[in-house]
Amino acid sequence: MTVAIGIDVGGTAIKGGVVSASGEVLTKEAIATQTQHGVGRVIERICGLIESLAGANAAAASQEVAVGLGVPGNIDHQQGVVLASPNLDGWRDIHVARLVCEKTGRRAVLENDANNAALGESVCGVGRGADSLVLLTLGTGIGSGVILGGALLRGATGDAGELGHTIVHAGGRRCACGQSGCLEAYASESSTVRRTTEWIAGGEPSSLKEALDRGQTVTAEMVVAASEAGDALARRVWEQTCEYLAVACINIQHTLNPQYIVLAGGMTAAGERLRAPVQQAIEAMISEQFGRAPQVRMSQLGNDAGFIGAALSAMPGD
Amino acid sequence: MTVAIGIDVGGTAIKGGVVSASGEVLTKEAIATQTQHGVGRVIERICGLIESLAGANAAAASQEVAVGLGVPGNIDHQQGVVLASPNLDGWRDIHVARLVCEKTGRRAVLENDANNAALGESVCGVGRGADSLVLLTLGTGIGSGVILGGALLRGATGDAGELGHTIVHAGGRRCACGQSGCLEAYASESSTVRRTTEWIAGGEPSSLKEALDRGQTVTAEMVVAASEAGDALARRVWEQTCEYLAVACINIQHTLNPQYIVLAGGMTAAGERLRAPVQQAIEAMISEQFGRAPQVRMSQLGNDAGFIGAALSAMPGD
Repeated sequence: MTVAIGIDVGGTAIKGGVVSASGEVLTKEAIATQTQHGVGRVIERICGLIESLAGANAAAASQEVAVGLGVPGNIDHQQGVVLASPNLDGWRDIHVARLVCEKTGRRAVLENDANNAALGESVCGVGRGADSLVLLTLGTGIGSGVILGGALLRGATGDAGELGHTIVHAGGRRCACGQSGCLEAYASESSTVRRTTEWIAGGEPSSLKEALDRGQTVTAEMVVAASEAGDALARRVWEQTCEYLAVACINIQHTLNPQYIVLAGGMTAAGERLRAPVQQAIEAMISEQFGRAPQVRMSQLGNDAGFIGAALSAMPGD
Repeated sequence: MTVAIGIDVGGTAIKGGVVSASGEVLTKEAIATQTQHGVGRVIERICGLIESLAGANAAAASQEVAVGLGVPGNIDHQQGVVLASPNLDGWRDIHVARLVCEKTGRRAVLENDANNAALGESVCGVGRGADSLVLLTLGTGIGSGVILGGALLRGATGDAGELGHTIVHAGGRRCACGQSGCLEAYASESSTVRRTTEWIAGGEPSSLKEALDRGQTVTAEMVVAASEAGDALARRVWEQTCEYLAVACINIQHTLNPQYIVLAGGMTAAGERLRAPVQQAIEAMISEQFGRAPQVRMSQLGNDAGFIGAALSAMPGD
């Protein structure tokens, strides 16, 4: 059986698994990232997890079995280098593929985490067998992966598929990337929270004011719950988040017209309270001139999508 | 020598040529469209032009030589049907490929005109040999064509590459398509003219007011000239047009990261007065986080791009 080991490195956890060529998870395991001990220590932990997974499943024991690595942020796939990763302290110009290869004796390939999730969902998730799929990961930021012709779109210089930083409101809110009006500046978890606290600070009434006054951290989940409970401010914030995601889906449709548009990441914990208003906003806003409105789907592989895609990207023959 | 006949049907002229597989124009000819005499008459004129071109070049004489047709608007490439064409009066559900095939005895394929222009520029124009290229045609509306992996991107249901209707200012200006905030609503020739007349009607001073008062039609070229001559209102309008085009280029970069971004169509008559401010606005607005800013190029094939691409799309083996 052809297998590969997939590793998904996040800010808090490293998830991994032994995965078959069809995307079946044979074994999986997760450990804490512990970024505070430095990059070298995290790489040791990654290699430890690889050996643990290889020990747990005989099909992955041989050093011939390759490793796929997924890391959030800006990466150089060709060189296997993490150029910069906002969620991983100190990760700048880290030759992680070479380092993992040296320590484990295994071939290692590096990919962006959202790219891996898109690959995973297209091979064995919600878009099983899809020729084309766009996935948006909705978390602190907004990542994305584009599958066209069954393969990841990387672009001429490796910079394709950064849909979180497409501009949906020219001259609008400042984004962490330095641009103005990015999708991420309106529709990420952190933007949802930030708009809530800004509007409350501006004097608008909300049931969430009390939590803020107590010094409690407001989360996107709290905004969704308050909106459901009838809080007018929370409802407006959440509607805006969903409307901007709808704009992104309309733009994806008019640019790429993929078979599937998939939402993934932390904010999808909201389930139908996210999917339904996004779909409604698409149908309310899109022109009928360009065919049928796209149907938005929710990720099926959830937290496993990243390491499954990582493993798939490292399969021999790929 | 392998050749095909390319035909580009526009609102005022039908342009055609005999083109080699490498994109060389062996002969070309243009006639008036004369849409006022009805669809049937236009199709007769198309077939007349095909026979004229075939008569002018021996390589195209045989009925084995295929015809590529380009039409603006919404088309069904598979079926060879023009679904709707705003610039061609009465063209709705017209099986143009079948009709041309029946009248000429030649295989005929249909493609959107901007798609053809993108194909032409990628094979033998400014992006000669490009694997990936995005072309925007800036005219009354904004069309586009996307080349990826050396081939046209059509999308899952044939609706890809409608970048004029991606939303760049959510909740913004109403577009002719029914959506709000489309690129076309800000950066087309007609939007440039409309914003100028709206602002003048709103009481803002401009050297163009006199022309309007005389009942003269203001054109985008007049706005550019007034801007150059120091008219403050015209300058603001033109800067806004160029800024929105820059937003579109930034979004193209972050989504597709093609080798080339090419501007084409009537508004490119402004030359450097268009290209330079668009390029400057890109560099001023784009985040450095995602690699080098894209370089915008101007179309090289000009008015011939459409029929050259049409011919290329009909080449045997394609």
